[in-house]
Amino acid sequence: MTSIAALGSRAKQASRHLALASTASKNAALAAAADLLVERGPEILEANLADVANAEQEGTSATVVDRLRLSHARIAGMAAGLLQVAALPDPVGEIVEGWTRPNGLVIEKLRVPLGVVAIIYENRPNVTSDAFGLCLKSGNAAFLRGSSAAIRSNTAIAGVVREGIVKAGLPDDALVLVDDTSHEAAVEFMRLRESIDCLIPRGGPSLIAAVLEHATVPYVIDGDGNCHVYVDASADLEMALDIVVNAKTQRPSVCNAAESLVVHEAVADELLTRLVPALKGVELVGDARARAIVGADRMAQATADDFGREFLDLKLSVAVVPSLDAAVDHIRTYGSGHTEAIVTRDLASARRFTREVDAAAVVVNASTRFTDGEEFGFGAEIGISTQKLHARGPMGLRELTTVKYIVTGEGQVRT
Amino acid sequence: MTSIAALGSRAKQASRHLALASTASKNAALAAAADLLVERGPEILEANLADVANAEQEGTSATVVDRLRLSHARIAGMAAGLLQVAALPDPVGEIVEGWTRPNGLVIEKLRVPLGVVAIIYENRPNVTSDAFGLCLKSGNAAFLRGSSAAIRSNTAIAGVVREGIVKAGLPDDALVLVDDTSHEAAVEFMRLRESIDCLIPRGGPSLIAAVLEHATVPYVIDGDGNCHVYVDASADLEMALDIVVNAKTQRPSVCNAAESLVVHEAVADELLTRLVPALKGVELVGDARARAIVGADRMAQATADDFGREFLDLKLSVAVVPSLDAAVDHIRTYGSGHTEAIVTRDLASARRFTREVDAAAVVVNASTRFTDGEEFGFGAEIGISTQKLHARGPMGLRELTTVKYIVTGEGQVRT
Repeated sequence: MTSIAALGSRAKQASRHLALASTASKNAALAAAADLLVERGPEILEANLADVANAEQEGTSATVVDRLRLSHARIAGMAAGLLQVAALPDPVGEIVEGWTRPNGLVIEKLRVPLGVVAIIYENRPNVTSDAFGLCLKSGNAAFLRGSSAAIRSNTAIAGVVREGIVKAGLPDDALVLVDDTSHEAAVEFMRLRESIDCLIPRGGPSLIAAVLEHATVPYVIDGDGNCHVYVDASADLEMALDIVVNAKTQRPSVCNAAESLVVHEAVADELLTRLVPALKGVELVGDARARAIVGADRMAQATADDFGREFLDLKLSVAVVPSLDAAVDHIRTYGSGHTEAIVTRDLASARRFTREVDAAAVVVNASTRFTDGEEFGFGAEIGISTQKLHARGPMGLRELTTVKYIVTGEGQVRT
Repeated sequence: MTSIAALGSRAKQASRHLALASTASKNAALAAAADLLVERGPEILEANLADVANAEQEGTSATVVDRLRLSHARIAGMAAGLLQVAALPDPVGEIVEGWTRPNGLVIEKLRVPLGVVAIIYENRPNVTSDAFGLCLKSGNAAFLRGSSAAIRSNTAIAGVVREGIVKAGLPDDALVLVDDTSHEAAVEFMRLRESIDCLIPRGGPSLIAAVLEHATVPYVIDGDGNCHVYVDASADLEMALDIVVNAKTQRPSVCNAAESLVVHEAVADELLTRLVPALKGVELVGDARARAIVGADRMAQATADDFGREFLDLKLSVAVVPSLDAAVDHIRTYGSGHTEAIVTRDLASARRFTREVDAAAVVVNASTRFTDGEEFGFGAEIGISTQKLHARGPMGLRELTTVKYIVTGEGQVRT
């Protein structure tokens, strides 16, 4: 195994070339990597089979094994993802703004790559290819650290992708995969300030906790989504039903799925009565008022823990509130700052909700499921930031860049 | 002393009001605080005298005591600073961009305050007022932790400012000062994720190291400035002399002062020969080639440590290089990513330098001293970021904000 510091240094070196690479050469590398992924699919699948066999032998849960498992279709999906990123506009080189100072200095704010983007991720081997694609297109080197369970798959994918990069005349270290999957190596990785410009952890609460505890490199947290739908007194109830059902059930395992319904008391009877049959198969937990409407047999008592939890499952907590203020308070108490939606016909309610609720995305009369890079029109996403620094909400190519100021004078000095 | 968590919670509570406060009420609070600072100057000076006496008794260095000492003029300067911030445009509420998706969803990216901005700072009591002003104008609560040496001064200033805030009908907890100046309290402060949205440490390397080690809240590093001036083969030497002298000597104690001169060999003889008398009083250290030109008696041998150090003093390291490439390499090795300048008449050299040098500000034909919030036209600054996430370079009011997405539909669900 190569030391983490040496790997980081290689990624840093490559990042200098990538920062100056033309859009055409980056796109060529993405296309070459996509071709090779498909062409060398059997080799990747073989490595993956070994990972899967190993995981099954160790008694890993079926869900996790499913995330780990590749197929020809999944590899084709990875390749298609790279081509999709190649088709996106290059964010690098944009002059974000510029102005001239009274003393004649011209100041330009230029969009440039971050440098080395580090990603720590869990079992999905497709992240190796997906993260690389977004990093490369935005001019960054991808410094990747996957899980030990996926190491054979990740190594095979990284090897093939690196061949593709070289075919396009770019440095293979545009993708550097850490081969040491120990905990110690992960901690060292999170502290490699000389090489890493930004770390994006992609994983559950224990990974996030480890980053908060150990990381000294700058990072962006892609945190939980405890998303609410608030149905206002003035809501179109037909619309509210559609939105709640969609937000909860269309894909319950993702962060922008709704976990909680908050209903104004004026419409709680009718909404909940109609909602229960529409949410067949969804476990409901709620407060006393909701249970009185729905029936204690259909809805267990919700604890504070229920209201605060991201279920990522077919489970929904329900609260009945006397006012918009109480709804905003409830969301302030339990929300995770990801996505919060209101269903209303009242302009003042919509305005208050969007102003007073503090979240990456505040949605009026639509499903929470739209908080997503593709749905926002970014083409692809590397994650959804729930922090306020650098990026908030879906992170596309632009969120993988920074700026530098170019100041041009004709001999100006300060007096 | 109140617990750090309780103080943070008060700041958080206040931040919710501030996020919705009108520009007029924020400006009124700044004006009221400015008036009270002057009116209650004697009370502040009395507290400050006690801090100064205490510091002198403890044998604190004269430089540090000078930073600690207030005067009527300094207090007037603090008041003027608040009025200057009041006159700046309010960054909150700007719709940064917006678009409509094919499905009819309207997506707006709205500029909003960060929430609670925490500042840890060293001895200068004026930071209490200056930081508050920028935080308030940008709709944030200021959660401040100064040094123990300045605690009486800071407490007096914070008390007066809080009275001003209340006069304008805003919550006094728009400024919360931590009264526990112990190391343990500082560590707790840096880990208060439930209350702090952004931490900006204002201090030296040991403070930065403590933040990297302990902080779990998001932070922006205002780091060292080991700034270079590179004099290209094609430089106008008259301009180069002016720029080097200005960058080095106009105010050597600040981060945007030049610490190192890199000269192309083609002009090294003439430039260095003319520069030495112009830099009378400046200690010079250099490489062998520079010393051969200047004379070993006038210039000591520079170590790698010299080249890597931010002197913050009348000291300059000098290197003679054979090419622009070598200059870029030198800067890559020793620079801190703050400000790097080139003096050149050659368009290709300027273009290569600005593309290849990785720094917050790259300057062509002007002094490094212009990397500054006021000089950039931001009106005021809270610091200069040397990291790439969130903000890079001078941080003004806009850098104390984040965005939130407002998504407006008419019942859209995801299919």
